[in-house]
Amino acid sequence: MTASFFTDQYELTMVSAALRDGTADRPCVFEAFGRRLPNGRRYGVVAGTGRFVEQLRDFRFDHAELEFLAARRIVDDRMAEWLADYRFTGDIDGYVEGELWFPGSPLLTVTGTFAECVVLETLLLSILNHDCAIAAAAARMVTAARGRPIIEMGSRRTHEAAAVACARAAYIAGFASTSNLAAGQRYGVPTAGTAAHAFTLLHDDEKAAFTSQVATLGEGTTLLVDTYDIRQGIRNAVEVAGPRLGAIRIDSGDLSVMAQQSRDLLDELGAPDTKIVVSGDLDEYAIAALAAEPVDAYGAGTAVVVGSGAPTAGLVYKLVEVDGRPVVKRSENKPSIGGRKTAVRRHKPTGTATEEVIVSQGAPDPMAGDRVLQRPYVRGGVVVGALPTLQESRAHLRDCLISIPWEGLKLSPGDPAIPVTVTGGH
Amino acid sequence: MTASFFTDQYELTMVSAALRDGTADRPCVFEAFGRRLPNGRRYGVVAGTGRFVEQLRDFRFDHAELEFLAARRIVDDRMAEWLADYRFTGDIDGYVEGELWFPGSPLLTVTGTFAECVVLETLLLSILNHDCAIAAAAARMVTAARGRPIIEMGSRRTHEAAAVACARAAYIAGFASTSNLAAGQRYGVPTAGTAAHAFTLLHDDEKAAFTSQVATLGEGTTLLVDTYDIRQGIRNAVEVAGPRLGAIRIDSGDLSVMAQQSRDLLDELGAPDTKIVVSGDLDEYAIAALAAEPVDAYGAGTAVVVGSGAPTAGLVYKLVEVDGRPVVKRSENKPSIGGRKTAVRRHKPTGTATEEVIVSQGAPDPMAGDRVLQRPYVRGGVVVGALPTLQESRAHLRDCLISIPWEGLKLSPGDPAIPVTVTGGH
Repeated sequence: MTASFFTDQYELTMVSAALRDGTADRPCVFEAFGRRLPNGRRYGVVAGTGRFVEQLRDFRFDHAELEFLAARRIVDDRMAEWLADYRFTGDIDGYVEGELWFPGSPLLTVTGTFAECVVLETLLLSILNHDCAIAAAAARMVTAARGRPIIEMGSRRTHEAAAVACARAAYIAGFASTSNLAAGQRYGVPTAGTAAHAFTLLHDDEKAAFTSQVATLGEGTTLLVDTYDIRQGIRNAVEVAGPRLGAIRIDSGDLSVMAQQSRDLLDELGAPDTKIVVSGDLDEYAIAALAAEPVDAYGAGTAVVVGSGAPTAGLVYKLVEVDGRPVVKRSENKPSIGGRKTAVRRHKPTGTATEEVIVSQGAPDPMAGDRVLQRPYVRGGVVVGALPTLQESRAHLRDCLISIPWEGLKLSPGDPAIPVTVTGGH
Repeated sequence: MTASFFTDQYELTMVSAALRDGTADRPCVFEAFGRRLPNGRRYGVVAGTGRFVEQLRDFRFDHAELEFLAARRIVDDRMAEWLADYRFTGDIDGYVEGELWFPGSPLLTVTGTFAECVVLETLLLSILNHDCAIAAAAARMVTAARGRPIIEMGSRRTHEAAAVACARAAYIAGFASTSNLAAGQRYGVPTAGTAAHAFTLLHDDEKAAFTSQVATLGEGTTLLVDTYDIRQGIRNAVEVAGPRLGAIRIDSGDLSVMAQQSRDLLDELGAPDTKIVVSGDLDEYAIAALAAEPVDAYGAGTAVVVGSGAPTAGLVYKLVEVDGRPVVKRSENKPSIGGRKTAVRRHKPTGTATEEVIVSQGAPDPMAGDRVLQRPYVRGGVVVGALPTLQESRAHLRDCLISIPWEGLKLSPGDPAIPVTVTGGH
């Protein structure tokens, strides 16, 4: 199955009709943007662009797909021929991964004929809506963790392929590592993980399990100590691994109480360098609540992969220009401005972001402290330049989050961290 | 990338250690179950089992994966050899797709050596947690729709591969069709879809767009009438397509008001057989609120693919038996009973379900009206019998939902539709 078939049927039936009536080749501009941020969030995080551009390289309709379309009579012969020859030949510009977005930000702008642009819609939105949602949730957890590392371990709570994209998005957002091996293999995300409760239950007793784990993974490993009694588990762990045990993990119980008790016990047992990893349904609020406790690292699972209350970013992909003329659907409560947008973010001399300025069919008047937000990704169907690495995207997001007013980092619901102005051109 | 690498790293490090200490081959039983239903839901819906069993057929570790593991030093040579030879040789039993589940229901039971069972954990849970969540949300929408068809059109709001599984799960739950072509191709789910607002905006005016669509897709097509003015859109639609126009679709505005006005207008225009499809952020509550309106079909998107408030089913996969002896993790607020479970659903002579009875290391005393809930899927690593078709799963769910007490179908939060008793064996 190719990426091209991750699509809504209507993308193809629209092209079918447009081919017949002669509008298929009209020059068009489509934009991906969000009308609002989810659930009182103060910023959005761009993620997925790299995945989209990679999949665009191989975006073709194969023989089996064409046969399916013909057998179901979804398209006619002419359309089948067009699909068989399909290559995107237009341009794509957009925000980089790790950039912040706000209501109206033109995350991706796709320029080309109607037909070649519209067939990208579903895939583009699927990738961006998913990855942006995960990255935004993960970024809030990273803020809440105040520099302590977070391990992404939510694979089992989401679709198996989505899990790989989740690990990637969480890494962009600043997570330290993931449990997901496919994400390690495909994207180079650092991987982590040692043992589950099943491993302890498998053995005749806890000490036997710990002894085995240390023999295989070394004294630097992380031992899961809460299968039976946590305090006894910690004693067993240090007895077996010695004072150079890497870490213990606690996955249940009152984590704030247990973290302090565990720290005291580890110190008492002569293992002051053994770290404490906590996990178990942690979201950004639970992480924030543990800030004062002697926790060294967090494991976050479900909350990350379901976007912590905002499982989709709510981005849309709209036709904004046809033949150079702005177009817009009638909307009662969705103010929209047609036309291709250009966006900059304004900053004070101190570097604090003050505003996102978006102009349709023109460009914002340049000011000191402006940062241009769109970069070229594709020209004439060809990917231009190297895509940012995940490391670069991480660094970029870190810088962006430092630049917004401090209220923007609050976890509570609120307005977007900076105002956005969208205006027509000059 | 093979399905085997959609896994948490710790599944492999556990096996590594177990191979060294001699416990890897201990006979084990793992069970997938949910401790509770999400968010006051009254029932869960089983989905994904078919996808899991299909992926199990090809569950192998390939050369590139083994190289990755070696390069990262995640496993040693002995473990690499074991992985290279990996084939699941055990047994799998479980609930069929379309079955209901309740807290404690043993959805899947995996029997084999510790090593061969534990490496399936992440993939099994990813598939079931995702697909069960989608099916449960979709089933509530189907109930709310009271027999009117629902088209699944949420692909763009979730991960591109997850979208395919969503379409499949929603179809099991009783949706009529999906917009997703990959789901049509891979699973035979009926597909639907005609045009978006962009198609109208592309053309010089709405009539030109409608004329083109009807010329290509026929008068039986569905015309999207809310790009500009809905009433004028309907007039244009009937003028262009004639009174045998298949349907109009309304995707915005106050759908209850618009449905009635549109029906009146269509009737007035002599198109009483033209159907009305409504879409636009519909969830089970919005669908229920439209029950009295002259709506012929619903399009549901975001709410389905994000599980309508419960994006993951919260299922776990626990080691419950080692060497024939029940095992269980210490839990303060999570009552667990070790040992392999056997489950039946009890029914009154009228067919109404009264209770789910689950017995550990034994079987419930047989009673009239009992239905056995587990079936064999895999024996000695080989899939036994044909998997139920999606049609059969749909029919099964329909029957199951008829069988539960009527309160179970309420959309409001509440207790599980029937009580569950989990007891030790005789």
